Amino acid sequence: MTTATTPEAPDLTMVDAWWRAANYLAVGQIYLRENPLLAEPLRPGHIKPRLLGHWGTSPGLNLIYAHLNRVVRERGTHALHVTGPGHGGPSALAASWLDGTYSERHPNVPRDAAGMATLFRQFSQPGGVPSHIAPGVPGSIHEGGELGYSLSHAFGAAFDNPDLVVACVIGDGEAETGPLAASWHGNKFLSPRTDGAVLPILHLNGWKIANPTLLARMPRAELDALLTGYGWRPIHVEGDEPARVHAEFAAALEEALDEIAHLKATAHTRPRWPMLVLRTPKGWTGPHTVDDTPVEGTWRSHQVPLAGVRENPEHLALLDAWMRSYRPDELFDADGHPTPIVLANVPAGDTRLGAVPEANGGTLLRELPLPDPHDFAVKVTEPGASSSEPTRALGEFLREVFARTATRRDFRLFGPDETESNRLGAVYRATAKAWQEPVTDLDTHLAPDGRVVEILSEHTCQGMLEGYLLTGRHGVFSCYEAFTHIVSSMFNQHAKWLHASREIDWRPPIASLNYLLTSHVWRQDQNGFSHQDPGFVDNVINKRPEVVRVYLPPDTNTLLSVGDHALRSRGLVNVIVAGKTPTPDWLTMDEAVLHCTRGAGIWEWASNDDGDPDVVLACAGDVPTLETLAAVDLIRRHLPDLRVRVVNVVDLMRLLPETEHPHGMPDTEYDALFGTDVPVVFAYHGYPWLIHRLAYRRHNHAHLHVRGYKEYGTTTTPFDMVVLNDTDRYQRVIDVIDRVPGLGARAATVRQAMVDARTRHRAWILEHGEDMPEVRDWTWSSDARDPH
Amino acid sequence: MTTATTPEAPDLTMVDAWWRAANYLAVGQIYLRENPLLAEPLRPGHIKPRLLGHWGTSPGLNLIYAHLNRVVRERGTHALHVTGPGHGGPSALAASWLDGTYSERHPNVPRDAAGMATLFRQFSQPGGVPSHIAPGVPGSIHEGGELGYSLSHAFGAAFDNPDLVVACVIGDGEAETGPLAASWHGNKFLSPRTDGAVLPILHLNGWKIANPTLLARMPRAELDALLTGYGWRPIHVEGDEPARVHAEFAAALEEALDEIAHLKATAHTRPRWPMLVLRTPKGWTGPHTVDDTPVEGTWRSHQVPLAGVRENPEHLALLDAWMRSYRPDELFDADGHPTPIVLANVPAGDTRLGAVPEANGGTLLRELPLPDPHDFAVKVTEPGASSSEPTRALGEFLREVFARTATRRDFRLFGPDETESNRLGAVYRATAKAWQEPVTDLDTHLAPDGRVVEILSEHTCQGMLEGYLLTGRHGVFSCYEAFTHIVSSMFNQHAKWLHASREIDWRPPIASLNYLLTSHVWRQDQNGFSHQDPGFVDNVINKRPEVVRVYLPPDTNTLLSVGDHALRSRGLVNVIVAGKTPTPDWLTMDEAVLHCTRGAGIWEWASNDDGDPDVVLACAGDVPTLETLAAVDLIRRHLPDLRVRVVNVVDLMRLLPETEHPHGMPDTEYDALFGTDVPVVFAYHGYPWLIHRLAYRRHNHAHLHVRGYKEYGTTTTPFDMVVLNDTDRYQRVIDVIDRVPGLGARAATVRQAMVDARTRHRAWILEHGEDMPEVRDWTWSSDARDPH
Repeated sequence: MTTATTPEAPDLTMVDAWWRAANYLAVGQIYLRENPLLAEPLRPGHIKPRLLGHWGTSPGLNLIYAHLNRVVRERGTHALHVTGPGHGGPSALAASWLDGTYSERHPNVPRDAAGMATLFRQFSQPGGVPSHIAPGVPGSIHEGGELGYSLSHAFGAAFDNPDLVVACVIGDGEAETGPLAASWHGNKFLSPRTDGAVLPILHLNGWKIANPTLLARMPRAELDALLTGYGWRPIHVEGDEPARVHAEFAAALEEALDEIAHLKATAHTRPRWPMLVLRTPKGWTGPHTVDDTPVEGTWRSHQVPLAGVRENPEHLALLDAWMRSYRPDELFDADGHPTPIVLANVPAGDTRLGAVPEANGGTLLRELPLPDPHDFAVKVTEPGASSSEPTRALGEFLREVFARTATRRDFRLFGPDETESNRLGAVYRATAKAWQEPVTDLDTHLAPDGRVVEILSEHTCQGMLEGYLLTGRHGVFSCYEAFTHIVSSMFNQHAKWLHASREIDWRPPIASLNYLLTSHVWRQDQNGFSHQDPGFVDNVINKRPEVVRVYLPPDTNTLLSVGDHALRSRGLVNVIVAGKTPTPDWLTMDEAVLHCTRGAGIWEWASNDDGDPDVVLACAGDVPTLETLAAVDLIRRHLPDLRVRVVNVVDLMRLLPETEHPHGMPDTEYDALFGTDVPVVFAYHGYPWLIHRLAYRRHNHAHLHVRGYKEYGTTTTPFDMVVLNDTDRYQRVIDVIDRVPGLGARAATVRQAMVDARTRHRAWILEHGEDMPEVRDWTWSSDARDPH
Repeated sequence: MTTATTPEAPDLTMVDAWWRAANYLAVGQIYLRENPLLAEPLRPGHIKPRLLGHWGTSPGLNLIYAHLNRVVRERGTHALHVTGPGHGGPSALAASWLDGTYSERHPNVPRDAAGMATLFRQFSQPGGVPSHIAPGVPGSIHEGGELGYSLSHAFGAAFDNPDLVVACVIGDGEAETGPLAASWHGNKFLSPRTDGAVLPILHLNGWKIANPTLLARMPRAELDALLTGYGWRPIHVEGDEPARVHAEFAAALEEALDEIAHLKATAHTRPRWPMLVLRTPKGWTGPHTVDDTPVEGTWRSHQVPLAGVRENPEHLALLDAWMRSYRPDELFDADGHPTPIVLANVPAGDTRLGAVPEANGGTLLRELPLPDPHDFAVKVTEPGASSSEPTRALGEFLREVFARTATRRDFRLFGPDETESNRLGAVYRATAKAWQEPVTDLDTHLAPDGRVVEILSEHTCQGMLEGYLLTGRHGVFSCYEAFTHIVSSMFNQHAKWLHASREIDWRPPIASLNYLLTSHVWRQDQNGFSHQDPGFVDNVINKRPEVVRVYLPPDTNTLLSVGDHALRSRGLVNVIVAGKTPTPDWLTMDEAVLHCTRGAGIWEWASNDDGDPDVVLACAGDVPTLETLAAVDLIRRHLPDLRVRVVNVVDLMRLLPETEHPHGMPDTEYDALFGTDVPVVFAYHGYPWLIHRLAYRRHNHAHLHVRGYKEYGTTTTPFDMVVLNDTDRYQRVIDVIDRVPGLGARAATVRQAMVDARTRHRAWILEHGEDMPEVRDWTWSSDARDPH
């Protein structure tokens, strides 16, 4: 809660010059298509036809960048810069162009007059670059636009990077969002010993699009209390007079970095880390008043402060004067090169904020030393003869991953307090949960250097994992299936970043973002309707097929195979939906690897179709697979002459045509599995129409009938859940009988028996509160069936 | 930051008796299926086969409820109780059963021994009631389970209810979530004059599922700073000795309510409202130690503290002793009726927390005095001859709604600082934005009693609106389309509540939740890829069809009609996707009303098919409609003999079969619009596969070809966006030519001209940075076409 005192003036001339240069370049990008160096007075023809961009946040961002450059230069700080106000594209582009990094990455935009002209023209223009920060901007680690995730990204970046200082600029707009509000508490998880530091820089420019911001308007004492309550020590800098702000901000930054160094050397439990609060006018140094209306220091400077520049000579003159107010002749030589005074504030080589390798995580990524999943496999002597808890086995696999990365420290597991509940607790034999507060006798598995991170904020988990991956490490997010929707929008933004990054050749792929969705819709025995929602997958597959994968392993060994595969993959979002409750073991590990590699296949051992099925029973997901095999068992017993084929789908994307997804299968292969004119009765884990959406182009689509969750649920037994949604074994037999023609009288009798079984089920659970023995005790046991 | 001092002891005997009774009933629900009054020692046969439920939070919830009862009784406080820890179902059910409200609503569960037995048996059992709070619980206003929304619901409930005190219990687990963290700032919007009060009760029981909570573990001074920083004055009560906690909590509650009354009488700007912090052990009064392991006061009491009761005689004895520790013979008579000492703590009639009408909003709902949308219509002399901004006209309509509800105050508009940007600014002529901090010269439209609420937190907007609707009022959430994903999960939970409420006959429907999604995917001229995502609709239609509607009005008058309809509807979620930029006016207001009532229809004036089309050009959404009509124009000029039918879809649900959705159309009607064997080229606003998902059962599905957004985007011109996604007019003509057989050589020439136009477009925008004149200046002008 100190206010920085004016220091013994260091020489900030080059910092100010760099700042003026960056401001000049930001304005130029918004307005100019010609005359970048103002070689002549501005004319309407120099101005872009469409004026787009966000000026308001840019001068503040530039100021921070200028000063970060100084401490990198002078102190050798190893700094990563995370930008919350990602719509400040003009600032980020200007900064990296001054760095030289932009030109190194984009040789068509050299650091000279021609390059400056291109930098200006390309901004926010068709065929050019986006107005928001995007993967093409060196030094950036996330797409600008959707607000709220900068600070959790910063924590993720700092984990296991003990020498790194992550300077995270948070706008006062962003600070109003829920995800940002929660992520201040990330300091409870950051070890002063094994992690880097996060230096939040809360930038209060006072305004959003058309409103004051909450944090800028609350009384100063209240703001201090809030930030102190979040566990930080705020250092304030405030002003609108550049020289004074420069001096104070330089001193504040020094103070914060000194303190960080001290705390890292001495702290044993969670220290009170310093942070900066910078209060400067929105649109600072821009036009103060336009058409007699205040602009600088108001919401009116949010985007383009002078809108009529092409038509209105007064506005044009204001723009000319505004740009010349930065004294460009001091900043750029006649060839457009930045002058020595500007370049003096650019750090060297890879310490430049545009060049730090952590901002291009793929360059740092090392392959994980993964164990062989066979070592964690369950032994399967016969399909369905035994049961196991899939996530428990995966937990053992992950434990070994933790053990093998104990020194490297480049693997983490994130979750909202569900690791144990999701039966992944084995990991605690290799690592602990990160926790910096004092530990009590009642606590379990807490330690400062733990690599499991649990906070009851899906947003913070997701954001930290993204930050961890974006800086070149590996990880998994384990989450209740229904509540993954909480981060739908974060997933969207990350997938967009991955997609856009594919076109940036200097960004090698980062590790995939792996979701383990468990405690899924069908097994909410102790919860209820609010916990039943399998629709996250529907959102995921709207994103570009190049970057998304969805897996539904039906048992333990397939989960191990899929988990292993996901951790080896790059540049993707893998969604793995898996159960935690005892599930029949269908496949040996070798079979599982083969099946998962194919992604979908006929289960010969469960089929009796001799290559010519009367019906295909398809399934995707553990519970649908169980119900399908139970239905096959009923069919084999009661309608032994019916030729049944069982197809299991692990990799959902296989159902798409190969023209639509890299994993899509060609029609010939699809037809070989599902036939072209045979009824297909498909049991799917989630909302059934998703399967139609994937398969509607297929030859046999007219005969495809899908069952799945259709939003009926409550707190009830597992089997009652499938009955409520018509996805149970009995209904599946009914579906088969209703779709295979010519089955005769015997089938009608069987059909009635199935209807009766559903009725019997209802009566039984109402009386007994649990499932019928014939359901509970059923196992797949091939010898009891009539051989075909 | 005061700690309540021990008061001059009021008589809390009945409060304690009520608390013990509620605790007893909570335990009974988790464990017992027989012997509810413990008439005999517990035997294994009395115990449920499946032990499910959440004990840990229940005693704290019960304590708060007991004390709220007291202040309602003694002070006549008009209180609404909002429960954050919604998995505390046993507590809520116990409380409303003691209230008598449960039995009034559920006569099969009377307030006697038989009713108690049913209360116990039904809990978390098949055919019974969910383990989490659900609409069947009197006094509840949201589904329990997903955490984070209680406090924003509480603010929504308090808006425009000046006499109401909303007591909002926030668990320390929930307090870690982002949405909850953001919503503390709701106090910046709550007027001491025109709104009610929110009394947050932060309940620190110290633990989540398997972890300590952040807020319980941070130093007390830090917690105080945090809550103070959020603008509250915390009053602490802490302990594990019931008598002392009773006394202190009673005093603290009195102090808070006195202060609220004082502040409401005196405050002119935002006061520092009081709040309570209650720190009691998790699973308080439950088994202290089980099998030598601490349980009470630890995470182990989260769900079922004694798991082996049926098999383990020691556990059974512990349960018996635990239940008897509440001295049930003092609490219930031999017939199971609560004794007078317990009933003495139950308030009267509709002041009971289970009976307050605000918790059953449909009973308070009044029809909105809506103006006639004709009064706000744009004049349309000829289709496409003029343009207007659809949301601007809707803003005028909403302004009149605000004006007509100025006294009633039962209508609000919520948004994350986008009302002006979304061109709804006309509303400020009738009301202001709610704002309790001092107002400066630079501010516009801020006032303490404003009924527009703008906070840069989609979560808080959504939560406040939900709370407002759930307590019987009306409202709209205006949001950037892409960022509606941020509240996907909140939407899911609200839709589940609406769905489940339909089966509760004593809950009349509340007003619909109306989303206005604007600044949509196709018009992100100044933003970029991060702002381009039309997939919220895909998530919406996964919910039960009974409660969701999706509208895509193509122009201003249709938006007015849809907006009017949405505000009249009940118990739904209406998603309206509409543009804010100038859009051709296609329909007169009368035509618009007719078209929107039908939901989909042939636009005869744009068609020349004489009932027998060669091709159907279908469209849904403003930009797809524009491109479709431009394509029709091209076809009519270049291929005048081709018989083209234009079908516009406003109500997306019309595409579903009538068996799947209340708005679904029968096949006969669908076939009459789309034909049975004619090519249908469909331009859709969002991800194209959604249309297949809706229409895959239709006769003509094999001939349906859909274009839409397929995740290609950046900062570029509006027309370039449709070109990037193959949804532009030229591509639509190509699609038609490729699908209609036998068009001959002329068509091949036209096709090439279309390909050339797309090439020309690309070259043009790269050079000029804006769209070609032939695109920019195009209008639908029927007289220029060859009449058919």
